Amino acid sequence: MRKIAVLGSGSWGSVLASMLADNDENNQVVLYGNRQSVCDEINEKHSNSHYMKDWSLNKSVLATTDLTQAVKDSELVLFVVPTKAIREVAQNVKKVMLDTNTHPLIVAATKGIEPGSKKLISQILTEEIYPDHEDKIVAISGPSHAENVAQKDITAITCASTNFENAEKVQEIFSNDYMRFYTSNDLIGVEIGGAVKNVIAIAAGMLVGKKYGDNAKAALMTRGLAEIMRLGVSFGAQPWTFSGLSGIGDLIVTCTSVNSRNWRAGKALGEGQKLEAVLENMGQVVEGAVTAKAVHEICQKDGIDMPISEAIYKVLYEGADIDEEIRAMMCREKTSEVRW
Amino acid sequence: MRKIAVLGSGSWGSVLASMLADNDENNQVVLYGNRQSVCDEINEKHSNSHYMKDWSLNKSVLATTDLTQAVKDSELVLFVVPTKAIREVAQNVKKVMLDTNTHPLIVAATKGIEPGSKKLISQILTEEIYPDHEDKIVAISGPSHAENVAQKDITAITCASTNFENAEKVQEIFSNDYMRFYTSNDLIGVEIGGAVKNVIAIAAGMLVGKKYGDNAKAALMTRGLAEIMRLGVSFGAQPWTFSGLSGIGDLIVTCTSVNSRNWRAGKALGEGQKLEAVLENMGQVVEGAVTAKAVHEICQKDGIDMPISEAIYKVLYEGADIDEEIRAMMCREKTSEVRW
Repeated sequence: MRKIAVLGSGSWGSVLASMLADNDENNQVVLYGNRQSVCDEINEKHSNSHYMKDWSLNKSVLATTDLTQAVKDSELVLFVVPTKAIREVAQNVKKVMLDTNTHPLIVAATKGIEPGSKKLISQILTEEIYPDHEDKIVAISGPSHAENVAQKDITAITCASTNFENAEKVQEIFSNDYMRFYTSNDLIGVEIGGAVKNVIAIAAGMLVGKKYGDNAKAALMTRGLAEIMRLGVSFGAQPWTFSGLSGIGDLIVTCTSVNSRNWRAGKALGEGQKLEAVLENMGQVVEGAVTAKAVHEICQKDGIDMPISEAIYKVLYEGADIDEEIRAMMCREKTSEVRW
Repeated sequence: MRKIAVLGSGSWGSVLASMLADNDENNQVVLYGNRQSVCDEINEKHSNSHYMKDWSLNKSVLATTDLTQAVKDSELVLFVVPTKAIREVAQNVKKVMLDTNTHPLIVAATKGIEPGSKKLISQILTEEIYPDHEDKIVAISGPSHAENVAQKDITAITCASTNFENAEKVQEIFSNDYMRFYTSNDLIGVEIGGAVKNVIAIAAGMLVGKKYGDNAKAALMTRGLAEIMRLGVSFGAQPWTFSGLSGIGDLIVTCTSVNSRNWRAGKALGEGQKLEAVLENMGQVVEGAVTAKAVHEICQKDGIDMPISEAIYKVLYEGADIDEEIRAMMCREKTSEVRW
């Protein structure tokens, strides 16, 4: 038997837990959540109706609010908790690992940049869990609506690690006939694409709210990718990673799907709604708005040219006018397409 | 005054001609077409109702079926004729140039690969017009539905030349406050993206016809880009060009817009219609079907791995089953994301 801990019982955590149990009957999957009622429902009815309607988990998945029960003796610990909870959960996982002499491979499915420290998820996990072993961290990222994966619809995503064998191990455990994993050694590049795409998705929504056409949307996504790439390269990422599933692939899904919260928030702003009302109506965190702030701080500090992200920051936090920002962007100095 | 010849009176040619006249009242734009009725309508009513409904051209645009009248003394000759007509028109342009001592910059807006020779548009134009001066050719390509540009909606595209000054000259003449041009020195890369995207668009349509979801579509576009990039690199293109407007930008527009003929053909095939019926119903050439054949020949000859394009070729020309091809693609050997 191979024990796997999945941390986070939202939609993506639940779907991945069930998929891993489906993939191999020798996988013993324990799903850790912080709400007893969700865990009870999963254990008793094999459903998670708050997050996933009309869907059943593999019956062998055990849900628990006890982190020790989840992590102890696990070969693999998969993080699917929100960015803001990552550091605390990681610290608790580390305690369990020390107490139970467990040395799992760590897989990060969460995408984001930690406010304040401006660190990526893998950097937080390395700091808190394996300070001398970044190679024990694998990130998975790509265009992957949980709903599609739950329906066993075709999905392809990237798994990245500085240690290629560990990326390949995750590829082996996660792959099946509807989910294809490609390996990468560019951990940072894969994570940056996943985090920053949400800012561009707000901008894409704004264009739709303002009734711009297909050319404008495609231009925005392409130039958005160019600035994500510039940011990534400044972090040490490989530029071509952004042409991949965790870069343009994830950006396409997020900027074209009405299911994206960030896109919907942008659209509402484009239609003239006020920021406070939009955020309130969403009911959940609009991650792109948080990331826009972190990206703005990085740009100011490191002098990186990210005109779209900066325009979103100005609209969200400085009351700038959307039309003004679009006009300013079209009148920028004429330039070449590729600049690192 | 600066005389500009636009060759091809379809929607894109007409819109570009009108835009160039709008950009500067010193631009004297002559639009060459092969149908007298279209030219008469443009000259008399300033409209081109067969291609563009409810739209007027700049009144100063003069349309003619006389190539000499169009090309003589032009500073710039813009090709917007179909791929199959490019070589013949180029030969005729060359004759006029010699007869009238005219030495224009050549701009290619046509996208495609010539059947048989497997040459790109710029290669044909170089051969026929400036055999020793490839640097006099500039290609423009990117996500640009003519309808959006006609409405002065925001559009951004790339202009590429081996001679950077010539690319910048085109950038200067074409740019305005709704149309932004980025320069590139990767002529071949810019052209390959524009040509091969149509094959991937057929595949994207098929997935929609088969009712696959957003993850699958994003994965297809991303992996499609990866194989276009492999083809491009084998032609000597720079890989990062494909992350730009003429690569992923154009691919996004073509794979997500219901206005794309190639996408609609793929969707009909995915829904189970027969190839002959689909091609007949389109009424116009499905360029991706032609390009799929050229790409297949190139792959066979040069051993380039393009699984999506090859699957489309098999479905179109060898009666392969779409579901079988999708299954085979998911079961390919596990691999890394970046391979040149």
